[in-house]
Amino acid sequence: MDPMIFLEVSNELTKLKMFPYFDIAHFVVTCLYLREDLSTGHHAFSRKHPLACWISCMFSAFAGNILSGFLLGEPIVEAFKSTNHVILGTAVWYLIFYSPFDIVYKICKFLPIKVVIAIMKEVIRCKKINDGVGHAAQLYPNSHLIMVIIGTVKGNGASLVKIIERCLRGVWMPNSIEFLQPSFATKASIGASIIFILDKKTDLISAPHSLVYLGIVIFFIYFKLSSMLLGIHDPFLPFENLVCALFFGGREMPVKMEMQRTICPEMAKVK
Amino acid sequence: MDPMIFLEVSNELTKLKMFPYFDIAHFVVTCLYLREDLSTGHHAFSRKHPLACWISCMFSAFAGNILSGFLLGEPIVEAFKSTNHVILGTAVWYLIFYSPFDIVYKICKFLPIKVVIAIMKEVIRCKKINDGVGHAAQLYPNSHLIMVIIGTVKGNGASLVKIIERCLRGVWMPNSIEFLQPSFATKASIGASIIFILDKKTDLISAPHSLVYLGIVIFFIYFKLSSMLLGIHDPFLPFENLVCALFFGGREMPVKMEMQRTICPEMAKVK
Amino acid sequence: MDPMIFLEVSNELTKLKMFPYFDIAHFVVTCLYLREDLSTGHHAFSRKHPLACWISCMFSAFAGNILSGFLLGEPIVEAFKSTNHVILGTAVWYLIFYSPFDIVYKICKFLPIKVVIAIMKEVIRCKKINDGVGHAAQLYPNSHLIMVIIGTVKGNGASLVKIIERCLRGVWMPNSIEFLQPSFATKASIGASIIFILDKKTDLISAPHSLVYLGIVIFFIYFKLSSMLLGIHDPFLPFENLVCALFFGGREMPVKMEMQRTICPEMAKVK
Repeated sequence: MDPMIFLEVSNELTKLKMFPYFDIAHFVVTCLYLREDLSTGHHAFSRKHPLACWISCMFSAFAGNILSGFLLGEPIVEAFKSTNHVILGTAVWYLIFYSPFDIVYKICKFLPIKVVIAIMKEVIRCKKINDGVGHAAQLYPNSHLIMVIIGTVKGNGASLVKIIERCLRGVWMPNSIEFLQPSFATKASIGASIIFILDKKTDLISAPHSLVYLGIVIFFIYFKLSSMLLGIHDPFLPFENLVCALFFGGREMPVKMEMQRTICPEMAKVK
Repeated sequence: MDPMIFLEVSNELTKLKMFPYFDIAHFVVTCLYLREDLSTGHHAFSRKHPLACWISCMFSAFAGNILSGFLLGEPIVEAFKSTNHVILGTAVWYLIFYSPFDIVYKICKFLPIKVVIAIMKEVIRCKKINDGVGHAAQLYPNSHLIMVIIGTVKGNGASLVKIIERCLRGVWMPNSIEFLQPSFATKASIGASIIFILDKKTDLISAPHSLVYLGIVIFFIYFKLSSMLLGIHDPFLPFENLVCALFFGGREMPVKMEMQRTICPEMAKVK
Repeated sequence: MDPMIFLEVSNELTKLKMFPYFDIAHFVVTCLYLREDLSTGHHAFSRKHPLACWISCMFSAFAGNILSGFLLGEPIVEAFKSTNHVILGTAVWYLIFYSPFDIVYKICKFLPIKVVIAIMKEVIRCKKINDGVGHAAQLYPNSHLIMVIIGTVKGNGASLVKIIERCLRGVWMPNSIEFLQPSFATKASIGASIIFILDKKTDLISAPHSLVYLGIVIFFIYFKLSSMLLGIHDPFLPFENLVCALFFGGREMPVKMEMQRTICPEMAKVK
């Protein structure tokens, strides 16, 4: 296989337009997540409290922009500036929650379609991390920590504000805070931010930017599919356990606890 | 009756100065609301925790400015920039909570005076919604959603931050979030914002701005008085139930639930 | 003793560099506070959740800057702009929580060292209050309330955000809000802010600024040492009780309640 094909693919990828198809995938994933979080109560909740349901959805969907705006001292409402995005998000929300016979939800849960949407979501996630790091690098060219924060927040905003999003629905679960048990998406966003910074700010990575970008997209998609299809939840765990054992005094019962979390994330959520 | 008189009244109304009388009415309503929220504990609380009581009151009273500043990326403390307003608010707070024999509180609860204060509060509410929409329209001339958000936040800030205001007093009631059961004031603020936007941004409303303004003021006062004197709480309900039935799959037990809420808002609050 | 020596000392004091030694003292005090707040659970928590522990620590340590940035509409992340401070804070955090045989913690708890660190912390607190008041005075030269707010927030940020900092660790204690029972540090920060404003904005204080500064530093250190060595917790209490009795209808059981708080702050915390 011609190696130039990689470069071409990656160049195409960096120029890919996100609106509207990839944005739709993002909104679908957000709405499905919300619906699963409501679990059996989703029907009653969406009928009784359509306003709270919509606000909750919009808050999750634009969480990356809201949170990065908040941290960078930019207007929070700017996240909703693009009327097209708001209308698109509202349409997706409406179809997922209120379509007749729940047909749209069922289609989205159909495995092949679910896989395609998940892949598109990972592509847009990478784009957002890249944009976030770039934006922070423009504002604070010397502060790597800020770049990591903004990249992570852009890549995985919805998880980080889950506690507030639940609060908007009247559900308060303070022990579900993301930092206590960071999900794979959070860790991967941190990792991707760091690689983008190494690429941008140092000479450690000699590959062209678009190839680095492609590599990260492939990494995200690969592990998303592993997680969806094979049930492997967290490839960072062995590395994490090693670091904890070396530097942080070892984890209390690291194997058992983490096993539980890997095998049965629902159980970990309940605790 | 000469129709020109309406135009004259409305022109006067738009030029009406809010400071100090209408601001006093606003502060009185806010303090009374806080005192009722503390219910039987208000005496003990205001004696034990004067600082928390004062902060709570100021936060409620300036909630519209605080929240809109927060959302628009403007300094939050700017809400307290006007020393005159802060002193006025503090004086009202002091008189409502600590006047000898509770005389000021009793005067404010005397029905004719209560009605006058309520009317003035609705006038200032309209002014704030109008200013909020205008301010947002200057910053984001193409984003109608942002104008609605800022208008609503200015008109009914205290309700939207009630959950945080209670938290400042050590009371945490996450299920009292405004979006789950939006009050009439919130819905009316949303409606008024939309009408101001239609007036400002489209040609749908051919009447002069001051007449539109007068109409909304009358609408607010009319329903406030209905609610105070006749116990009618929510004229939006039939319309809402219709929309819910048509587009949002119908409400679960819409009549019963809403009846309860209309007839006995205290019960709904407790749940 | 030559009175000129005071002026010299105070001039030296205002020019004192905070980085790195005083900053180290600040980070040590913050980390010790967090560790005590975790009480017996600190070992398990720091091993199971190093990320949450680090974020919690950084949030506390930079709370003054974060909160004042938030209130003044400045970027919140700017608090972390100085990479040197972040690295220093991280090093202190690491040594306090994970040093072998807990040696660093034990050294910091050794009384003479504890006293030195506490004194340095009070010096840096004064510097921060002074800077905060000055910064607010530049932005809002006519609003004394804003100057007090920013000065207090800079001087005692960690206490004011304790409720959020605990939330970041999955612990939610809404009744531990600072305003309900303001600590001595909060009251002293308010007092110091007011004195700095009087010095800056009026002619009431004729002494040179550096002498005022020295006086406040001595006041802070004196009461910190009284509290550490003699168990006197709140010299403001008699004055407060007088004001409350005169203007706020008297406190319910002021003596008993406050006695408890003074003698046994742990009991008050538990309630």
